Amino acid sequence: MTGGRRDGRADLTPPPGESPVVVLVRPQMAQNIGATARAMANGGLFHLRLVAPRDGWPQEAAYPAASGADVILDRAAVFPDIRAAVADCHRVLGTCPRPRHVITPLLDARAAAAELRAVNARELRVAVLFGPERAGLEADDLAHCDTLVRYPLNPEHASLNLAQAVMILAYEWWMAAETTPPRQLQTHATRPATKGELEHFLDRLVAELDAAGFLHNPPKRPGMVRNLRHWFERGEVTEQELRTLHGVVTELARGRMVRGRFAGEAPPVPWESEG
Amino acid sequence: MTGGRRDGRADLTPPPGESPVVVLVRPQMAQNIGATARAMANGGLFHLRLVAPRDGWPQEAAYPAASGADVILDRAAVFPDIRAAVADCHRVLGTCPRPRHVITPLLDARAAAAELRAVNARELRVAVLFGPERAGLEADDLAHCDTLVRYPLNPEHASLNLAQAVMILAYEWWMAAETTPPRQLQTHATRPATKGELEHFLDRLVAELDAAGFLHNPPKRPGMVRNLRHWFERGEVTEQELRTLHGVVTELARGRMVRGRFAGEAPPVPWESEG
Repeated sequence: MTGGRRDGRADLTPPPGESPVVVLVRPQMAQNIGATARAMANGGLFHLRLVAPRDGWPQEAAYPAASGADVILDRAAVFPDIRAAVADCHRVLGTCPRPRHVITPLLDARAAAAELRAVNARELRVAVLFGPERAGLEADDLAHCDTLVRYPLNPEHASLNLAQAVMILAYEWWMAAETTPPRQLQTHATRPATKGELEHFLDRLVAELDAAGFLHNPPKRPGMVRNLRHWFERGEVTEQELRTLHGVVTELARGRMVRGRFAGEAPPVPWESEG
Repeated sequence: MTGGRRDGRADLTPPPGESPVVVLVRPQMAQNIGATARAMANGGLFHLRLVAPRDGWPQEAAYPAASGADVILDRAAVFPDIRAAVADCHRVLGTCPRPRHVITPLLDARAAAAELRAVNARELRVAVLFGPERAGLEADDLAHCDTLVRYPLNPEHASLNLAQAVMILAYEWWMAAETTPPRQLQTHATRPATKGELEHFLDRLVAELDAAGFLHNPPKRPGMVRNLRHWFERGEVTEQELRTLHGVVTELARGRMVRGRFAGEAPPVPWESEG
């Protein structure tokens, strides 16, 4: 923990086109500054500026909440006012939880992230302002912003923690460039079974159930077989799971033979058929 | 602060089709439980269950971080294990920050929110499990889940605070049903100007600039007028702003006349033309 820099601007100015600058305006609690750094790192934002932090800067109390994102705190630059903090920025967005009587384009967090990516791609330097914990940015602060950002959230409980507000923007910033498919089947060691593998298993299962007398009701048999098939067709069974199920059938069939031979139990009750 | 209920299940079971149940599995810090309740309220989630909280429940220390979402804490139900906590649920999703060797459908937060809304619309009861702060859900916990959720975030710094993880899901839950347009121009007291109003203003401005001698270079005049028009065409000027600009032109023109009459100043330097 080397502590923040009070002076720096020139050397801390990210090249245009780097990730956006997060500006905390008059932040009050060191813990929130630390939690902001953690949220920034989570979402791939690395440039933090502080405007007139209430308790000064650096503050050791910020570091535990940063959970390893220390470098963001170490390099945080401090400015006396917004004008100085955004002087080298080409665009300034400001978060604005409540409606205001100002005439400024208003984006939700997702549209703001798309805008940040677009500005970024043009190699411009862009800042996003977040207001103090208690009341957010004031009208004079918002007048520095060319664009406002408001998150659609429960209007009955719209008061966001400062680091939560940063988290949502950082998350949307990351998501705006994310290419991972939104839906996957998590398979490391195996693959979905082919339909041929599934048919082979179902043939075996039905044969064993026939042998066991489970499918002994001829009028109901087609529906019962279909029900079994429906279940096994769902859920993209994997090749590994099919091998396990083959083993289960083998073991249960052996048990039946053993029981049938030695215990003379009653035959099992067939499942209810949809037919 | 009435404290949580240790017993409750039957009376705390949300009707199927209500908002999803958030289940914190072995949560460690009361402050995180409180911050979770706040994030839930922000995103319109109201049902909280706790599985074996480390320090027991209720805990007064949770309430300050809830920032008014006390009712969620008051009504939080405590269960000894996951099996009991999800017994009345039809679907169970589990957050899973790191890849695991399990074969389960994996959704990102946005797809998970869409899935939650879809399950909800079918009037089924659905739970989302969040693991303990240090390490998340264990393999035996994940075995209770029919679906896993992983947020795409910076892999270099993927460790999310527990309440941040809940916040992202709650935010996506809310967004999945949000109908506010993602981009608006925030206008309360006025409306965008019509093109006719804008033309009227530009005519006046150009006439005053002609009178002032600002557009005195005939070859450059068309390009300069076009430049002015480009600027005023951008940014969806409002009717109110046009009225202000009319006043500005009037005042500046009056100033010019005064100065021209009494001070005999040099004519202003024309702006550079693109032509």
